[in-house]
Amino acid sequence: MNQAPARLEVEDLQENLRAVQEHLQHDRSKAELRAQLDRLHPADVAAILEALPLEERLAVWDLVKADRDGEILVEVSDAVRESLIEAMDSRELVAAVETLEADQLADIAPDLPPSVIEEVVQALSLEERERLRAALSYAEGAVGALMDFDHIAVREDVTLEAVTRYLRRLDELPDHTDQLFVVDRDQVLKGTLPLARLIVSDLDREVRQVMVAESVKLYPQDRAEDAASAFERYDLVSAPVVDASGRLTGRLTVDAVVDYIREASAESQLAEAGLRQEEDVFAPVLDSFKNRWAWLAINLVTAFIASRVIGVFEDSIAQLVALAALMPIVAGIGGNSGNQTTTMIVRALALGEIQAAYWAKLLGKELGLALLNGAVWGTLLGAIAYAFYGNVALSGVMALAMMLNLLLAALVGVAIPWLRSRFGRDPAVGSSVLITACTDSGGFFIFLGLATLFLV
Amino acid sequence: MNQAPARLEVEDLQENLRAVQEHLQHDRSKAELRAQLDRLHPADVAAILEALPLEERLAVWDLVKADRDGEILVEVSDAVRESLIEAMDSRELVAAVETLEADQLADIAPDLPPSVIEEVVQALSLEERERLRAALSYAEGAVGALMDFDHIAVREDVTLEAVTRYLRRLDELPDHTDQLFVVDRDQVLKGTLPLARLIVSDLDREVRQVMVAESVKLYPQDRAEDAASAFERYDLVSAPVVDASGRLTGRLTVDAVVDYIREASAESQLAEAGLRQEEDVFAPVLDSFKNRWAWLAINLVTAFIASRVIGVFEDSIAQLVALAALMPIVAGIGGNSGNQTTTMIVRALALGEIQAAYWAKLLGKELGLALLNGAVWGTLLGAIAYAFYGNVALSGVMALAMMLNLLLAALVGVAIPWLRSRFGRDPAVGSSVLITACTDSGGFFIFLGLATLFLV
Repeated sequence: MNQAPARLEVEDLQENLRAVQEHLQHDRSKAELRAQLDRLHPADVAAILEALPLEERLAVWDLVKADRDGEILVEVSDAVRESLIEAMDSRELVAAVETLEADQLADIAPDLPPSVIEEVVQALSLEERERLRAALSYAEGAVGALMDFDHIAVREDVTLEAVTRYLRRLDELPDHTDQLFVVDRDQVLKGTLPLARLIVSDLDREVRQVMVAESVKLYPQDRAEDAASAFERYDLVSAPVVDASGRLTGRLTVDAVVDYIREASAESQLAEAGLRQEEDVFAPVLDSFKNRWAWLAINLVTAFIASRVIGVFEDSIAQLVALAALMPIVAGIGGNSGNQTTTMIVRALALGEIQAAYWAKLLGKELGLALLNGAVWGTLLGAIAYAFYGNVALSGVMALAMMLNLLLAALVGVAIPWLRSRFGRDPAVGSSVLITACTDSGGFFIFLGLATLFLV
Repeated sequence: MNQAPARLEVEDLQENLRAVQEHLQHDRSKAELRAQLDRLHPADVAAILEALPLEERLAVWDLVKADRDGEILVEVSDAVRESLIEAMDSRELVAAVETLEADQLADIAPDLPPSVIEEVVQALSLEERERLRAALSYAEGAVGALMDFDHIAVREDVTLEAVTRYLRRLDELPDHTDQLFVVDRDQVLKGTLPLARLIVSDLDREVRQVMVAESVKLYPQDRAEDAASAFERYDLVSAPVVDASGRLTGRLTVDAVVDYIREASAESQLAEAGLRQEEDVFAPVLDSFKNRWAWLAINLVTAFIASRVIGVFEDSIAQLVALAALMPIVAGIGGNSGNQTTTMIVRALALGEIQAAYWAKLLGKELGLALLNGAVWGTLLGAIAYAFYGNVALSGVMALAMMLNLLLAALVGVAIPWLRSRFGRDPAVGSSVLITACTDSGGFFIFLGLATLFLV
């Protein structure tokens, strides 16, 4: 907390933005705007850059002090980082990036030109280079990719007095140091010494007597999602990361976990709507197209299949054109209901709440709910269809098709996350397209099929 | 961290669950299962309860030690808490709840019978009663509803030596104490003293010389969302909460913020799919129906409107039945594309990234993208329609309708979040229904209208 922002209250992004915009619009003195930017926390500058269109963004970026470029690049989103990096030459990039620590460098490395990385790596100490290599070797969703290397380790056979003296020689402790890590001479983790315990204990006791021997520890290959859930369940501020032989290799802190949770939740929201990644709001049209086309293409294929299903029944529609008006209702409500089922299941799966033994029970419940829904909405829709077309058989077919499509929706809504979780795929991504595809094509088939059998 | 769970590694929920299930199925000795439960952190017991069907859940709940009931009730989700509370009589409830602190009590108070609350409140100290009243007086999304009252305050004119001696007299510090709060004799906040700074500084200096005078502080009526964003931007572990006259009233900690972020993101995901709240996976069918019916009803209304639009053009469809097969494609892709636009904008709004001045620019960009999409997908679909029906005019109408519906989708996709944010409503909830309603009805109208003009 030593680098706590120097302000009395939380900065209001909107106010900052308004001030920056005024400067830009009225072309006031650049020195003034520069002074305003210098006053702000890197995260606040990053938020301003995110909120400005490209031209204004680059004008502001030019005014940011060069020695802060690095930390701000770490804070912005991937899309905005790309736009900033494009505007810098390699000399500026090297100068910005060489101020970063290994774990931060690893975060933005994928966006940097190889020549810049090479030059920065040359300048690193052997230890830092090894850390960078380690951080880059872990997959994006692993603890290893989130951990940092700022921790303080002490031996278990020293007194708290000695620990206190040692700490006092440091100017400051690393951010989020709520505990020291206790290791033996081979760096094997023996326990942790919470600062709160260090502060309230007698100074002549030994670390070993005061430390927490059995505390949470993580492995670099652990899934970040599991680590986040551990931080949430056990209310952690930091946790040691150890390798297979128990040696301390790094540390995971709650700020990295909070960032991870936010990003993961944003990604799943974006993925549900078919955006491949976080998009710069002011991205050029072509960049946005690249980010969104794949989903539209998939949607085109499923819509086309549904269209062919309708095509099969063109004769029936030609004879009874009311079918064309009623069929989207059957399909639409099925899709909606199936998506409700899957959303609830995906969420429960993410919390680890569904055991293999209970899938059948769950399916039974969802089918029961579909029967109830079918009875309620089927009857209502049948009545509405009768009011419009005065055809009892048509309204009966409508009600029955509704019931059957809701049962199909429940079946598919349970089956898709079940299959995906069984085969180890992320159960959220793409579920809603698949379900809608089934309930659209299925709904058209059921309704038009029944109509062909009984009405035409 | 003093209450760090006594375990070497993060508990695996799946393993715990399997063990509990085995006990339940083979009806082994209850004492053994009880011992296993006692060994677990309250959050882990809560996770097990969430994952069990009602009957098994209550069997396990019966075995949990009565003095842990309170903390476990705080950990479980609202839906599961209700099912547990229903199974307890008021004597058990009072015993469970009176172990809680005021801020925890406030969290679960809405689920408790009034008689239980009354009895518990009677037993509270005056100070605790006042805290409970305060915590209950804030709306759910406010900082006041998330804050706790466990902090340590010191005066600015004492030496660090004196502070250290004072702390050492305490057995332990409250969880998440990364800093002490510095107040004057009227409890007005003067600054904060990070433990990390206390530890590295000379003991004969005064608090005033070492404290951080200008640190982040919050007000109880601040939006929790803003506080969470401050924790994320400034990497905080705790922050003081002060009243209008600057007096220290409580503290917000990162664990409460993490819980808030998780819940808010879950709620928005569930709301998008039309689930009113987090649902107990094993809820009775009727409970699930209540949670989901409203959305299906709204969907029914919008689907019905779209159906009436089609009804208007029944004559055209009767003459050219291919229209019935092609119309869902035009409608579907429009909905998809509009939802991509809105999802991106809603996300940017949540981050405060869209200034009033830039809406026009944004709309321009999305309309440009719609033109590009219309050219690409319209041409493709026109070609496909030609391949199937060999009718040049029909494929031209198809391509033009596609383009127009994509433009409509972009317009609506920008307008809906803009209107909602202008009128201070949450821009996420219900957006996708509204957009789909517009692009369905609009798509049918555009396509069938053009067909009626040019083809029939």
